[in-house]
Amino acid sequence: MKIVVQKYGGSSVATTDKIKEVAKKVIKKKEEGYHVVVILSAMGKTTDHLISLAKDISDNPDPREMDMLLTTGEQVSIALLSMALNEKGYLAVSFTGSQLNIQTTAMHQKARIKDIEISKLQKSLKEDKIIVVAGFQGVTEDNEYTTLGRGGSDTSAVALAAKLGASCEIYTDVDGIYTMDPRKLKNAKKINKISYEEMMEIASLGAGVIHYRAVEMAQKYEIPIYIASTFSDKKGTIIMNGGENLMEETLITGMASSLEDIQVTLLNLTSCTGSLYRLFGELAQQEANVDMISQMLTEDNKMNVSFTIPKTDLHIAEGIVDKWRKEDKSIQWEVSTDIAKISVVGIGMRSHSGVAAKVFELMAENNIEIKMVTTSEIKITWIVDVKDELKVIELIGKEFGLKEVHA
Amino acid sequence: MKIVVQKYGGSSVATTDKIKEVAKKVIKKKEEGYHVVVILSAMGKTTDHLISLAKDISDNPDPREMDMLLTTGEQVSIALLSMALNEKGYLAVSFTGSQLNIQTTAMHQKARIKDIEISKLQKSLKEDKIIVVAGFQGVTEDNEYTTLGRGGSDTSAVALAAKLGASCEIYTDVDGIYTMDPRKLKNAKKINKISYEEMMEIASLGAGVIHYRAVEMAQKYEIPIYIASTFSDKKGTIIMNGGENLMEETLITGMASSLEDIQVTLLNLTSCTGSLYRLFGELAQQEANVDMISQMLTEDNKMNVSFTIPKTDLHIAEGIVDKWRKEDKSIQWEVSTDIAKISVVGIGMRSHSGVAAKVFELMAENNIEIKMVTTSEIKITWIVDVKDELKVIELIGKEFGLKEVHA
Repeated sequence: MKIVVQKYGGSSVATTDKIKEVAKKVIKKKEEGYHVVVILSAMGKTTDHLISLAKDISDNPDPREMDMLLTTGEQVSIALLSMALNEKGYLAVSFTGSQLNIQTTAMHQKARIKDIEISKLQKSLKEDKIIVVAGFQGVTEDNEYTTLGRGGSDTSAVALAAKLGASCEIYTDVDGIYTMDPRKLKNAKKINKISYEEMMEIASLGAGVIHYRAVEMAQKYEIPIYIASTFSDKKGTIIMNGGENLMEETLITGMASSLEDIQVTLLNLTSCTGSLYRLFGELAQQEANVDMISQMLTEDNKMNVSFTIPKTDLHIAEGIVDKWRKEDKSIQWEVSTDIAKISVVGIGMRSHSGVAAKVFELMAENNIEIKMVTTSEIKITWIVDVKDELKVIELIGKEFGLKEVHA
Repeated sequence: MKIVVQKYGGSSVATTDKIKEVAKKVIKKKEEGYHVVVILSAMGKTTDHLISLAKDISDNPDPREMDMLLTTGEQVSIALLSMALNEKGYLAVSFTGSQLNIQTTAMHQKARIKDIEISKLQKSLKEDKIIVVAGFQGVTEDNEYTTLGRGGSDTSAVALAAKLGASCEIYTDVDGIYTMDPRKLKNAKKINKISYEEMMEIASLGAGVIHYRAVEMAQKYEIPIYIASTFSDKKGTIIMNGGENLMEETLITGMASSLEDIQVTLLNLTSCTGSLYRLFGELAQQEANVDMISQMLTEDNKMNVSFTIPKTDLHIAEGIVDKWRKEDKSIQWEVSTDIAKISVVGIGMRSHSGVAAKVFELMAENNIEIKMVTTSEIKITWIVDVKDELKVIELIGKEFGLKEVHA
């Protein structure tokens, strides 16, 4: 009998009525002839509520005690879903991360899964029970409760699917992954299939739907993930290994745009690798999150460097540049704040080299200045002025077929 | 270093502000030079809230899943108290029943403690940590979570104190045990010391303060229990082994009165032990909670039996009597509903035989009819008409010194 792992997020179990709906969805799968293992998040705003209790008591609560506190959230939802399944006449049993021995590292609040003991699961599956597991949590060798940090429940689901050789379904409050945020691109298309690499190259495509970390693990163990809405029957998106035949008609799978970054440019640096190492080393040390980097030599044997960082990290860059300029007054610098960072991703780019050229052509034809470009094998990212953002999105969306075509 | 176990009930940890107050109380004890082990209940109405979620889903939720649900309540409060202690600069660590291996029977919702592994506790005490333990819960051999049923947290506290050779303090929202419910006896005195046996003979003296079951365990392991208010420094009540020197000046330690019972009298039964066995056997089978029993033979070789049961069990008695009267039409029966059941308890009665006589004398002098009497070694219980209840309480209260004497 095939096993399927289904994960339901916090908004899907926010009330007892929603939990009853989830029970129906689980039972439907069971009736189709599957063994079902369900992973749940905490109900709705429960985790936020627990965090606010902790903040009432301490500005900096002990991470171990935070995990003690937060792991109760999923424990409540798994008990309630088991009851709802029982109520409908189905055998069900719930397990915490500790009970199931989801072994993790001892790093509280951001533990990593090391292994999962599946003997208990297999015993319950043999008894034909539906298994309901608390997501987001695990346990150390010393029986200390841990949580997996952001995206934890998704990671729990993928890890269990990998361990059980099961397929993995993630149910949430959106009905799949779109080519672009529909608030920015009218008629953005739902993507039927997307590769792990594409999802990871533009993590924001899955923002609020599935965590980067879970996709990474799914790729490692080659577990396809089906993402769909809990409360509708619309076809969702499948994330799986890409390949020519999967993507043959698509050059660009999706697009993202961010207004969260600034571009910093340093001119007249001493031209040596040491300068680069020193610059990005100091930024990293202060945890400034550098994304794009572009560097070039100038005629007079100097070097110009341009990079993007989140707006909130501007003060870090300022501090470093001030210090450098005290040492070398010839260094100039510029900061562009009103920029949009546009990215397109597509596994098809690997075999079609013309994508970057097409992007540049579109920009030129429409008099849009490109302030910076970086590319990877399957992704192109460029900076434009913020006033051009929506125009660029529309142009790219139309050109590469990211919009729903209505007759 | 001496160890003290302190238990705080749900009303003492109902809010984060109250938890901070509890932290101060715990720290005070620590500063007095004790190792402190704290047992907590769930915050305020948490357990009620969880039960209502379960009832939304099922009228008859699986007991195992109920325990999965309810054990989260204490887990939240222990995490928060640990944080509050950390915040004040004290090392603290919280443990669930499962982590501490509080081994119980597998009877969900009413498990009994079998043993507690204290190696983990001892390790943390050596590290000079304050230990915060989830009350009311334990774990089976198979790592299934269990709860201890009514009075569970008190029982957890006494069991841990017994296992650690510690003293036991129970903090609650009243400041001790009184000779009588102060709503019924004006100026009822607080009892400084009371024996286990007295507490158990009149369980209602401790109603809402400490559970019968915890007192029973405390007696078994000879653990004195100190009961006081969480949020005041008033001297409380100590429950301990009684003895001549403890009680020498007190004949009567406390008194209770209940209006919850009715008195059923059967006349003209066939006089044999078989009838009694059959009567009380049938009542027990239907779970009618018989309290007092009085029986006597009549001249014509018949038997009269009188007994009390809760008002809510009247229909059970009626059903049984109806059946019997079909078999033997000579059986008569009477039901008194407007009665008060008065009890006095005192370990001093053992060596002073005049207490019952004094009670009868007081009743006679004041023209109060006694409808039924039963006695044990340290307790006298009698039935009067409900209209006489408060008069009797006042008479007994004055005669036996149960009232505060103000100068």
